[in-house]
Amino acid sequence: MARLLGRFTPRDDRFYDLFARSAQTHVTGARLLCRLVAAAPDDRPAIAQEMRAAEHAGDEVTHEILRAVNSTFVTPFDRSDIYDLASRLDDVMDHMDAAADLVVLYRPRELPPEVSQQVDLLERAAYVTAEAMGRLRSPGDLSEYWIEVNRLENEADQSYRRLMATLFSGMYDAIELLKLKDVVEELEDCADAFERVAHTVESIAVKES
Amino acid sequence: MARLLGRFTPRDDRFYDLFARSAQTHVTGARLLCRLVAAAPDDRPAIAQEMRAAEHAGDEVTHEILRAVNSTFVTPFDRSDIYDLASRLDDVMDHMDAAADLVVLYRPRELPPEVSQQVDLLERAAYVTAEAMGRLRSPGDLSEYWIEVNRLENEADQSYRRLMATLFSGMYDAIELLKLKDVVEELEDCADAFERVAHTVESIAVKES
Amino acid sequence: MARLLGRFTPRDDRFYDLFARSAQTHVTGARLLCRLVAAAPDDRPAIAQEMRAAEHAGDEVTHEILRAVNSTFVTPFDRSDIYDLASRLDDVMDHMDAAADLVVLYRPRELPPEVSQQVDLLERAAYVTAEAMGRLRSPGDLSEYWIEVNRLENEADQSYRRLMATLFSGMYDAIELLKLKDVVEELEDCADAFERVAHTVESIAVKES
Repeated sequence: MARLLGRFTPRDDRFYDLFARSAQTHVTGARLLCRLVAAAPDDRPAIAQEMRAAEHAGDEVTHEILRAVNSTFVTPFDRSDIYDLASRLDDVMDHMDAAADLVVLYRPRELPPEVSQQVDLLERAAYVTAEAMGRLRSPGDLSEYWIEVNRLENEADQSYRRLMATLFSGMYDAIELLKLKDVVEELEDCADAFERVAHTVESIAVKES
Repeated sequence: MARLLGRFTPRDDRFYDLFARSAQTHVTGARLLCRLVAAAPDDRPAIAQEMRAAEHAGDEVTHEILRAVNSTFVTPFDRSDIYDLASRLDDVMDHMDAAADLVVLYRPRELPPEVSQQVDLLERAAYVTAEAMGRLRSPGDLSEYWIEVNRLENEADQSYRRLMATLFSGMYDAIELLKLKDVVEELEDCADAFERVAHTVESIAVKES
Repeated sequence: MARLLGRFTPRDDRFYDLFARSAQTHVTGARLLCRLVAAAPDDRPAIAQEMRAAEHAGDEVTHEILRAVNSTFVTPFDRSDIYDLASRLDDVMDHMDAAADLVVLYRPRELPPEVSQQVDLLERAAYVTAEAMGRLRSPGDLSEYWIEVNRLENEADQSYRRLMATLFSGMYDAIELLKLKDVVEELEDCADAFERVAHTVESIAVKES
């Protein structure tokens, strides 16, 4: 504790708060994806608009972090790590927004039930990431977080592979397959993006240790 | 002005000239895309070859910037920013070249008329970027540039979305759709690449201010 | 030689050994791709599993490099260059693994014969890269390596373009085309990834010279 008091200043709180807020937008985004997947096609555009608002809110936080990096003399950890973490968090939201966008843009007839599993896994990844971002002052204590995110990503990967097998099983015509494949790949990109956030946190923890 | 005289040396001119030359290749590239889109299929390969030449010229400039960064003791702004800006400018040309390449490689039967809007927007983005690169000595004065590029990117995004709706409207068979979708996405990547150049310039301006 | 003795320490050997081991996984990976392409569909999953094991081995090496960068006070060349080179090497293996995965996941009816040329070129790129990584202590002597990789990438690009022309020639239905296009593009991404490794080595050589 003495070490913490000695090492961190009130200015640092600003960074930790911003990272926590960035991760919180993913929780919002993941919930919207769950609603979107369950929604009737006509209800989807309104949900995608809420997603766009969440994505803008995330962008604002990212810009605030980058401005803070550039205007702060002493940062709680390496400038380039702050930049990386902010960018990796931002990527998650971008992929969520892109996935919602594709669902609205392509109007697939129906989403295969396995897509619900994909977005459920994203919601869990969003929760554990947001929880971990709230404890970023002690990155060394976050090993359970990055292990769990890796586990979720492996599960997401299995889910993605089952989905691809379903899509190419002959049940779908080529154009419907093309639409669903893009949506499913974008959701898989979200899971990968959560994993990259976890890798970045892990590498920060290694340096701080 | 005194500040400029004090801060910049003749060596710096080399960087500014190179960035201006890099951006100039985009003007060439965007004009070639406009011609390509309007051309009959048999005239396209020759235009794509001109594009390849422009891409090689751009590569040369990028390599010259990277060599200059490595061999110059004092650079006008952060080495990593110079590297980023050179890479982001290079990305624009790569996407232009890739788009021209796909049009020749896939031989789509016809390009939907909305593709002309896409390339017109790219041409405008190329002009404002080239104009801004000529004034990079005062990055703080370039806010109009990055605001305009963001606006053009939003317009390009709308145009892209309308195009996707057209492609999936049932007018195209799956293989034709597959071809056009790749071309349209590559052009959208060009617009995104221009926006990333603008973001890089904005972040340099913030640091210099 | 005196310069080498003066500049390098036993600790440096660790980095050179790790880079050589990373590149060695590409040789394994490229051989597996050659076997995969020649294999009957039912034999493919076992080969893809070997690829996954090679990819995990590569990941281990990459993590070891990153840990070594973070825990070593003096590194043989710039930390960020070590990081870049490790990441670019890792990318090669990721694309190889992804390509093997797609072949198993999509179960294309047959692979066009030109795919063998693609993987043969990858095998040659893997050999010259592994050979060069063994001589990384003198990056300035590696110009033949990066010239050869650029040449192979150009050849791979020609091969890729012929393949695309074949795929879109009307011989394949849309769904088969979709499968093969993804596989062929992933193999082309491997060739590009080898080229990016070579670019990174070239830029290190320029700085060291």
